[in-house]
Amino acid sequence: MSDKPARGGRRGREARKAQRASTPVAVSPYIKRNIPCTQILDEEGLQLIEANADTILEETGIDFRGHARALELWKEAGADVDGERVRIPRGLAHKILKTAPREFTQHARNPARSVVIGGNNTVFAPVYGAPFVTDMERGRRYGTIEDFRDFVKLAYLEPNIHHSGGTVCEPVDLPVNKRHLDMVYSHMRWSDKAFMGSVTAPERAADTVEMSGILFGKEFVDQNCVVINLINSNAPLVFDATMLGAAEVYAAANQASIISPFILAGAMSPVTAAGTLAQLLAEAMAGMAFTQLVRPGSPVVFGTFVSSISMQSGAPTFGTPEGTMILTAAAQLARRLGVPFRSGGSLTASKVADAQAAYESTNTLLPTLQAGVNFSLHAAGWLEGGLSAGFEKFILDADQLGGMAVLAKGIDLTENGQAMDAIRETEPGSHHLGSAHTQANFESAFYRYATADNNSYEQWDADGREDACTRAHKIYKEKLVSYEAPPIDPGIDEALQAFMTQRKEAEPDSNI
Amino acid sequence: MSDKPARGGRRGREARKAQRASTPVAVSPYIKRNIPCTQILDEEGLQLIEANADTILEETGIDFRGHARALELWKEAGADVDGERVRIPRGLAHKILKTAPREFTQHARNPARSVVIGGNNTVFAPVYGAPFVTDMERGRRYGTIEDFRDFVKLAYLEPNIHHSGGTVCEPVDLPVNKRHLDMVYSHMRWSDKAFMGSVTAPERAADTVEMSGILFGKEFVDQNCVVINLINSNAPLVFDATMLGAAEVYAAANQASIISPFILAGAMSPVTAAGTLAQLLAEAMAGMAFTQLVRPGSPVVFGTFVSSISMQSGAPTFGTPEGTMILTAAAQLARRLGVPFRSGGSLTASKVADAQAAYESTNTLLPTLQAGVNFSLHAAGWLEGGLSAGFEKFILDADQLGGMAVLAKGIDLTENGQAMDAIRETEPGSHHLGSAHTQANFESAFYRYATADNNSYEQWDADGREDACTRAHKIYKEKLVSYEAPPIDPGIDEALQAFMTQRKEAEPDSNI
Repeated sequence: MSDKPARGGRRGREARKAQRASTPVAVSPYIKRNIPCTQILDEEGLQLIEANADTILEETGIDFRGHARALELWKEAGADVDGERVRIPRGLAHKILKTAPREFTQHARNPARSVVIGGNNTVFAPVYGAPFVTDMERGRRYGTIEDFRDFVKLAYLEPNIHHSGGTVCEPVDLPVNKRHLDMVYSHMRWSDKAFMGSVTAPERAADTVEMSGILFGKEFVDQNCVVINLINSNAPLVFDATMLGAAEVYAAANQASIISPFILAGAMSPVTAAGTLAQLLAEAMAGMAFTQLVRPGSPVVFGTFVSSISMQSGAPTFGTPEGTMILTAAAQLARRLGVPFRSGGSLTASKVADAQAAYESTNTLLPTLQAGVNFSLHAAGWLEGGLSAGFEKFILDADQLGGMAVLAKGIDLTENGQAMDAIRETEPGSHHLGSAHTQANFESAFYRYATADNNSYEQWDADGREDACTRAHKIYKEKLVSYEAPPIDPGIDEALQAFMTQRKEAEPDSNI
Repeated sequence: MSDKPARGGRRGREARKAQRASTPVAVSPYIKRNIPCTQILDEEGLQLIEANADTILEETGIDFRGHARALELWKEAGADVDGERVRIPRGLAHKILKTAPREFTQHARNPARSVVIGGNNTVFAPVYGAPFVTDMERGRRYGTIEDFRDFVKLAYLEPNIHHSGGTVCEPVDLPVNKRHLDMVYSHMRWSDKAFMGSVTAPERAADTVEMSGILFGKEFVDQNCVVINLINSNAPLVFDATMLGAAEVYAAANQASIISPFILAGAMSPVTAAGTLAQLLAEAMAGMAFTQLVRPGSPVVFGTFVSSISMQSGAPTFGTPEGTMILTAAAQLARRLGVPFRSGGSLTASKVADAQAAYESTNTLLPTLQAGVNFSLHAAGWLEGGLSAGFEKFILDADQLGGMAVLAKGIDLTENGQAMDAIRETEPGSHHLGSAHTQANFESAFYRYATADNNSYEQWDADGREDACTRAHKIYKEKLVSYEAPPIDPGIDEALQAFMTQRKEAEPDSNI
């Protein structure tokens, strides 16, 4: 693999070099973890889940629907294919997965913002897939491409969001069969961070790869990961034609797929954590193995989205202890498979950015970081079980992500960290405020939440008694006003727009 | 040590037996953890902090102020005593601490609610020390004994709050030199859970022990822990006469002290986690060793309260990553010392139960459970850096504690937990809702937050668009209406009231 994007003409290369020089505020492109991962299952427990997953794949099997090529590939690989049902002998999926990379770089058009997915790294990406957007001023409404662009801009501006994400909200004002073009273009044009592609049809995946070729150079794209994509299973134990088609396009193009069993436990899996884990491991292994059958060595991620449901209403619930357990155990299982892991985020069922939203979000986000999740979608902005992307919630969550980045560093045990000189020079009963060590370290010493009010009650009262959501509203508005687009080579921009125009003119609008 | 409370007359014993029979709703008296504790420092890091703490005790030393007996005890034990400064040779504090119990039972007057403090157990107790109380209806105001009783009643009713706590709010309407009597009596009378005693003067500690003797029987109290007490150091490196006096009374009476360095890092300790850890370990070891010098074998707890400060305002900040790191490392250090550990809670600087309050609280509470904290004060109701006890916040936090109890159980790996039969009988593409396994397990399967709204947006909108704080307000009001006092032997109640009257009449009211 080559190290740097390099496209046809010299003009492209030079343009990219110039762009790199004008990069705005330097940020940490992703988190390199320096703390141990949390464990919830011991060796015996992990082996039990693995054995059960193998039993599921071997006995029940898994449906690969509407995709003849998938069935052929599985047959060739030695699986028992019966109609669309694929039964995978014990150990075969694991063996096939040995070609999958343990970690890989997803390149951003700004090389300083490329992310390493896997290993000891964590990448935070925005909310994905919300049909609605909400803010305090305009309330809840269907998302538009303007809202989409606003979220892309906010993610670009947030130093602790490492990735531009994918369908941050559905641009419902654009036809279904064409909106992917505007979404992909928005990520490319209004951010310089890494992004996600379309998965709603194989030809839309192909459009994403084409546009990536224009942005990064075709050769570069064939040899490097420049787009990552979300492939859900239909639990229990089904992959459908749409998802398989998209996964095939991306794997063949050497682009990354996140194979994510989407499970509302109790409905789409057993009502227990151990049962759900075995099923999701089976689904993830089968889906990931498929990408390796398409193109061995193509980057793939073990994904997990699990929520439990409320028995009163059937509604998904978030921030539950069961969710934390499943997330943590699944991360352990992914590490044993030797593949990157996606899960977690700032999830909640709340309709507004209130205490419920924050309790539930932190109950997912903190375990996400602690369990060693490598790629976290929905890390900012998620509300209402994913139905709504909230602008204030986005700002509040992003502030939390900054705290996670600090926690991941662990405790500084250098001499400066130990601060024994400061302790020696500070008499019992006096204070540390004036010590040389304090003065030298204060600025960088503690993480401070930008959205928190730490003032006295009296000051807070005098300032208008604002809650966190109100403060976040002001911040998001100010950020959008301050936004400046990252530079792009005008030739590339033109080529991208020309491609979109051509594709849009090639077929009539449709909402399928 | 005897196993059961047994007091003088037969009447007392029988009354207690009758009371036991009428115990309301059975609850889990405390959490028995079944998941691994989080680690943030490795062996080398832990040894480094321990060595630095020993260096601090040996070189700088620590002040035991205004308490001649403490200085005598330290001299006898082999420390270098210079005025009020006590320098403790390397290893001496650790050696003295070998008599401290690794875990102990704090008896409640209802034996079904006694708690084990230490080991793999976690006990959650309410907010402590708030001069103000707040709720949505009446706003923020000074606490009264009526508010105090309301919090005691709410803690009694909450199944996931294991302890009645201590100064849940300051009853500012009562004179300072007498309010401890009403506080201790409220815990004894309006709850049957374990509680905390007064530490604001040695004679108030003695009153607490006396009243405990009336409730549990004098002999029982001498041989068993029935009250636990919060002893703060004045960081850096000072214990004052008030705290030492109270700690001495309790240790001599075989009652438990939590020796808690109270540290606003950056002001009262270095601005780094490693420096703060060394200082707090030194302070905690010296204070705990003092209790063992007073009475070897008396129960003692390694306490930690650490917050960082905002450099803009000097205000304490909560839910920060540094707080999580220090809490987690201190729990590791306490386990190595072989003593129970107190820290954490649901801490926040927010003035209201909004998103800030919940983000910050969960960022402390979840690490509290994960790190293996044995006793967590402030687990419910804390607002505004501890200046205010919030009724709605109390309800919201208590709901979170229920989630922590489930998380602590870990993943059920029994056959029922594995649910392989359910997976076998559920065809790919169908669903688990109707399976026998789902029907058998649904009720107990997932924790559901009682304060959360998981309904659809439309339903929530129709229901009046309430946020979590508004829902919690209704719940707290309803709970207080539903409250019924646990039964108490009228003879004991009379004796407690007579003691209080006598003590109140013995001296004039004073606000010192």
